[in-house]
Amino acid sequence: MQRRDFVHVAGLGVLALAAPAVSTGRGRHQGRQLRVTGARVNRHLAELSRFGRNPQGGVSRVAFSQADLDGRDFAMGLMRTAGLDVAVDPVGNILGRRAGTARDAPPLIIGSHIDSVPEGGNYDGDVGSMAAIEVAYTLQEARQTLRHPLWVAIWADEEGGLTGSRGFVGALTPEDVARPERDGVPLGEKLRRIGGDPERLADAAHRPGSAAAYVELHIEQGAVLDAAGLDIGIVEGIVSILQYDVTVTGFANHAGTTPMNRRKNALLTAAEIAQAVDRIVKSEPGRQVGTVGQLVVRPNAPNVVPGEVQLTVELRDLDLAKIDGLWERIRRVIEGLASGYETPVTVAPRLRLVGAQSERAIRDVIRRAVRALGLSGMDMPSGAGHDAQYLAQICPMGMIFVPSAGGISHSPKEFTRPDHVEHGANVLLQTVLALDQR
Amino acid sequence: MQRRDFVHVAGLGVLALAAPAVSTGRGRHQGRQLRVTGARVNRHLAELSRFGRNPQGGVSRVAFSQADLDGRDFAMGLMRTAGLDVAVDPVGNILGRRAGTARDAPPLIIGSHIDSVPEGGNYDGDVGSMAAIEVAYTLQEARQTLRHPLWVAIWADEEGGLTGSRGFVGALTPEDVARPERDGVPLGEKLRRIGGDPERLADAAHRPGSAAAYVELHIEQGAVLDAAGLDIGIVEGIVSILQYDVTVTGFANHAGTTPMNRRKNALLTAAEIAQAVDRIVKSEPGRQVGTVGQLVVRPNAPNVVPGEVQLTVELRDLDLAKIDGLWERIRRVIEGLASGYETPVTVAPRLRLVGAQSERAIRDVIRRAVRALGLSGMDMPSGAGHDAQYLAQICPMGMIFVPSAGGISHSPKEFTRPDHVEHGANVLLQTVLALDQR
Repeated sequence: MQRRDFVHVAGLGVLALAAPAVSTGRGRHQGRQLRVTGARVNRHLAELSRFGRNPQGGVSRVAFSQADLDGRDFAMGLMRTAGLDVAVDPVGNILGRRAGTARDAPPLIIGSHIDSVPEGGNYDGDVGSMAAIEVAYTLQEARQTLRHPLWVAIWADEEGGLTGSRGFVGALTPEDVARPERDGVPLGEKLRRIGGDPERLADAAHRPGSAAAYVELHIEQGAVLDAAGLDIGIVEGIVSILQYDVTVTGFANHAGTTPMNRRKNALLTAAEIAQAVDRIVKSEPGRQVGTVGQLVVRPNAPNVVPGEVQLTVELRDLDLAKIDGLWERIRRVIEGLASGYETPVTVAPRLRLVGAQSERAIRDVIRRAVRALGLSGMDMPSGAGHDAQYLAQICPMGMIFVPSAGGISHSPKEFTRPDHVEHGANVLLQTVLALDQR
Repeated sequence: MQRRDFVHVAGLGVLALAAPAVSTGRGRHQGRQLRVTGARVNRHLAELSRFGRNPQGGVSRVAFSQADLDGRDFAMGLMRTAGLDVAVDPVGNILGRRAGTARDAPPLIIGSHIDSVPEGGNYDGDVGSMAAIEVAYTLQEARQTLRHPLWVAIWADEEGGLTGSRGFVGALTPEDVARPERDGVPLGEKLRRIGGDPERLADAAHRPGSAAAYVELHIEQGAVLDAAGLDIGIVEGIVSILQYDVTVTGFANHAGTTPMNRRKNALLTAAEIAQAVDRIVKSEPGRQVGTVGQLVVRPNAPNVVPGEVQLTVELRDLDLAKIDGLWERIRRVIEGLASGYETPVTVAPRLRLVGAQSERAIRDVIRRAVRALGLSGMDMPSGAGHDAQYLAQICPMGMIFVPSAGGISHSPKEFTRPDHVEHGANVLLQTVLALDQR
């Protein structure tokens, strides 16, 4: 029956305009009227902000810290109250499960993360996590059954490199967890602190096809929605990221005794590289971005001609081929500069993160939910990385953005309006209900 | 008699072509034949290099360190052997005195320093110090008396800010020695370690007119002589130095989520400032130099648009008015950039060091000594600061440069050829003998 309904309305997407009655639990009609409790999800967000709170505002809830452990306990308590069956998987993800009515249906997964960067804010990850739990609360209160199991996930150590979601799709290797990290401690040891078990990585891994869909609500972390005055971003995909390390070698000489025409000034070359990245990235239409964000001068003294500059070039776009092409243009300019200034330049790849497209059908579902809720929205890429990009390796993926005031993120000043949090949670709820029908 | 000789030859400078006999000690004719012992001065230089030697070469003989104390003991031992009467003055300068024959004649002062920068070389300061002592050795062995007293000075803490020479001319204040330095220790406390007495600053100070002349031999620390294949630089003066702190304020945003047209990238503004300094300094004829040597990006992460850049601008020239004018041009460009990029820029003075001219007559004396010794030379400015610039406040000043191989200084790779050390010491000796006649 369910399947037949789905087939029937496939041509119009998954939300039929004239919807037939459904056979299990409460009906789809009632589902469309379901709304989250805005005050509750915002209260949970405020309560979560206690864990790792900084005197100057915001939180430092770095993964595996005591604040993270406390925040995870808080979230697990909420999940249980929302009727979810809570467990921690071997890579530290908190999974709250709710049964579905259809036999053998794969789970619908929603969630986000609650770890933060040092001196971060109260919205990045937290909004999506509390909203996913709020969906469970709302379904429980309405006694709304779903055909699919619903899993609410709090992914472990998102800010440290999408650790939990990586493990969930089987992309975390024994080497990854054995290798000491920058603080000297192997990831595996840290996973144990949050209830994980690095010996059982295989048990955490999920095969492609093992989930029906993954949908994540997140703050935009950019200023596009805020500036446009829109409520919701329908995420087209998560950008690919290229990073290169560039080293310019000049010669560090006394700035008082070295005539201008005898200098090999690495900083002048580096300045042109920073400008070239900006110019070349802007020279093509599109939403690609390019940044020289890190630049270190040696020996970095007022009276010494810069002898070496190390800098990073980062490029991001949904289209990996496009940023590969932009890098090629930047690389050629760098080569020309190196010979012009007598300052050899070396280039080394630093990061190559292949992004992920969201599923067109899920975008359609989100778009309809936005419209049905009387909200405004737009399609947009996610310039930041998210757990969703790993989940896309095992199932169709979608993401919902809510506005970040002023585009500020990874800062105590991070802010998303309470009504936007509520709207986002309602779009997530309606998306889940609609996806449950396919 | 002496004075009459001097008057007689004044029109030709102080070295008369047909020299009359002199009345005291050995004659001027013999003086002109006097030569230092090149092997000895180079041996002393090698022996001095033991104190503070680094495994990778060069020395760290930072002022007031044990290495500095040991080096000072070594130098005082040499001075005594050379017949000098050695004492440490209240600001830590080592002064080795030799009596003159003329009643009430003010001293001729020669010298340099033996403290080094951290990981410095074996020539900066050391060459001039060992050569000044070698002059005393040579005069003693030849039983050559001088009309003027001769003072050989090892100035204290040159690299830390010309401390000893500053105190010698009365420019070191009680506040200067009381204020804790970067390491938290007041200068006064450090002066005690080397035998000084910060309570007696006034006793260290010398009035204008209290010395006949000051002459310092030093390595060039630049590549001009080396590149030109010349033996001696006749220093026209020590440059004035202007330093400014420049702060560019952008906005630190996520480099993935902030579109190119919404950025306030402080690094792009800073890049243009670095280029403008280079361009404007090169746009006028002359030997002025300008450098952005220090540049710090915040938060300095590959994935964050630079929110703030702090950088230094340094300008040097013999002509202070010229670099004041260059700074004015740079400042105007900076103002224009600030508004163009929406990145406010603030500018604050950091250092204004007024340089010093050497005396024309002393330059003539040095030039004749160079010629008489069969050496080659050229007039040039000193781009680096030296104790001589303070000494110029109390007496006529001259400086003699010897080549630095490759222009390298403040580095273990610093090198001056032994024959150049010997030539420089001979020029110093002949300059002293000639100045003694005026």
